Amino acid sequence: MQVVIPYTTRDPKSRLAGVLDEDERRAFARAMRTDVVRAVRAAGGAPTILTTDADDIDDVDAPVIGDDRALTPAVNAVLDDATSDVSVVMADLALVTPDALRRLFESEGEVVIAPGRGGGTNALVVRHPDFRVDYHGASYRDHQAIADDAGLSVTVIDSMRLATDVDEPADLAEVLLHGAGNARTWLEDAGFELEVTDGRVGVTRSD
Amino acid sequence: MQVVIPYTTRDPKSRLAGVLDEDERRAFARAMRTDVVRAVRAAGGAPTILTTDADDIDDVDAPVIGDDRALTPAVNAVLDDATSDVSVVMADLALVTPDALRRLFESEGEVVIAPGRGGGTNALVVRHPDFRVDYHGASYRDHQAIADDAGLSVTVIDSMRLATDVDEPADLAEVLLHGAGNARTWLEDAGFELEVTDGRVGVTRSD
Repeated sequence: MQVVIPYTTRDPKSRLAGVLDEDERRAFARAMRTDVVRAVRAAGGAPTILTTDADDIDDVDAPVIGDDRALTPAVNAVLDDATSDVSVVMADLALVTPDALRRLFESEGEVVIAPGRGGGTNALVVRHPDFRVDYHGASYRDHQAIADDAGLSVTVIDSMRLATDVDEPADLAEVLLHGAGNARTWLEDAGFELEVTDGRVGVTRSD
Repeated sequence: MQVVIPYTTRDPKSRLAGVLDEDERRAFARAMRTDVVRAVRAAGGAPTILTTDADDIDDVDAPVIGDDRALTPAVNAVLDDATSDVSVVMADLALVTPDALRRLFESEGEVVIAPGRGGGTNALVVRHPDFRVDYHGASYRDHQAIADDAGLSVTVIDSMRLATDVDEPADLAEVLLHGAGNARTWLEDAGFELEVTDGRVGVTRSD
């Protein structure tokens, strides 16, 4: 299956700016992308990176499509051109495993959705030419409505690993707890470790 | 399978105090517990509520065990007495479905763990007399270590629904997005609705 991995080089992971400077956020985003590309290949998918400017991508680990439009029109252009099933998997799923992706790829349904925490859509499989994406706002609900309006069957994947996109400092704890790839190693090398308090586990960074 | 559902009546859901008063938190906790009990039964489990004082429980919807000790010794007392497999499922898993619980109950392994967001342990299956729980701190890691030390096989369940315990205001959005039971209805009746911002979806409450 063709697997499109949207990846931006423009101010990546901006909500981590409180704990990582811009160069670090760029390097961490690249580490997560590398993990996603590897997991996609291990699950039998053919990854393509979809980015705003193909010249901006360093350490290319998959074919690259450049499209300077926003996420929604750029992904829809891929769907316009598709002649077979397409999956869209976000580049910041640092907990992803081949097993989680196999569940996604092998689930039946004209549209398969893996919701992200907070109403997003972290991964999709599109098996019908009438479906188009809309990533603005609560895209999980919007994608269900778009599929319903087109009369398409929808399957929702119940996966903590696919639901965990890494946007905010609290998400870094999930990478340290459950990650097993470059992203976790990058965080550990940068001095991050788990901090256990009375409530949920957070992270702390050594100097 | 015997399924123990720990449930406290002492200052329940204290981290929701900013958005719900004490009576509301008590009612919301009860709505979540009702959903969990129903899902456990629908998945073929035999639910028992484990609480600090059996006399404090109203609207009893399952057999009740009273134990005034903290969560860890109270659950371990159940494990001490167990003569067959025991599952422990937290009462605040408002997104739980019979399908998610069937995956838990049917997974192989002497210990089966469904991690919660932030390093907790939201659900367990214990199939070996040597395993004991320790819910303090990052219990997901501790439970893996306890099983490893005892030479027990561990299976980890990758479920967003089991990973989502409801502790903080941001978690309420998940209930509105993915819940389908009493807890979601309770929140809607209390005036909560999704609020879509640029980042993740949150909640707002009408007067």
